[in-house]
Amino acid sequence: MTNSLDPETPVLPDAAVQVRVRLRLQTAESILMGPGRADVLQGVSQTGSIAEAGRRMGMSYQRVWSLVKAMNEDFVEPLVTKQRGGAAGGGAALTPTGERVLAAYRKAERAAHKAAARPLLELRELLR
Amino acid sequence: MTNSLDPETPVLPDAAVQVRVRLRLQTAESILMGPGRADVLQGVSQTGSIAEAGRRMGMSYQRVWSLVKAMNEDFVEPLVTKQRGGAAGGGAALTPTGERVLAAYRKAERAAHKAAARPLLELRELLR
Repeated sequence: MTNSLDPETPVLPDAAVQVRVRLRLQTAESILMGPGRADVLQGVSQTGSIAEAGRRMGMSYQRVWSLVKAMNEDFVEPLVTKQRGGAAGGGAALTPTGERVLAAYRKAERAAHKAAARPLLELRELLR
Repeated sequence: MTNSLDPETPVLPDAAVQVRVRLRLQTAESILMGPGRADVLQGVSQTGSIAEAGRRMGMSYQRVWSLVKAMNEDFVEPLVTKQRGGAAGGGAALTPTGERVLAAYRKAERAAHKAAARPLLELRELLR
């Protein structure tokens, strides 16, 4: 995302300036969804494997699995299912609920990014 | 921000779920503005003192000053000025440019938070 603002935004001299948006849903006790968990869901969706999702993120299998386990407990239905056996030796996939959660989170990220772009223009124009 | 979404959002059973939005402006090399820098600006604005702003944030004077120095160099004009001498023994204040940068950043945060609220509603409804 080198061209960081949305396509309608005029190109500025500081095109190398990126806007990064991080959204987190949390309670006082725990994180429910955030950039790391969303990346885990996306990695499982794209690779069909918890281990491979972890390798992509530079995370141990144990770390990814603990995030998957937490998400599976925090939502009304599991977000990730493990499939054992078969020719491929098992794998993992998002449930329909997992797909919905990931899609809603990404949509919120895009909406937040777009909404922030205009107010940030004034700030960007004050950069050296 | 216990009631985390904007006032127009229907109250959900999970009212204790908070949405946290973090915005960062950065280049490949460095951070230009983010939550910590904005809090430094706000602390200086509210306390008139770099040391007191640091105490509020649990940061050393050196750490706060290094952030102020970086911001003063990254923008077309300094964002914070130090005032030496006088009855109060010196202090610090935001310049008009500093006020504008802080206001634009907070406005962007509010806009991003509001824009994310609706897409996150679907996700929140799937929480246990």
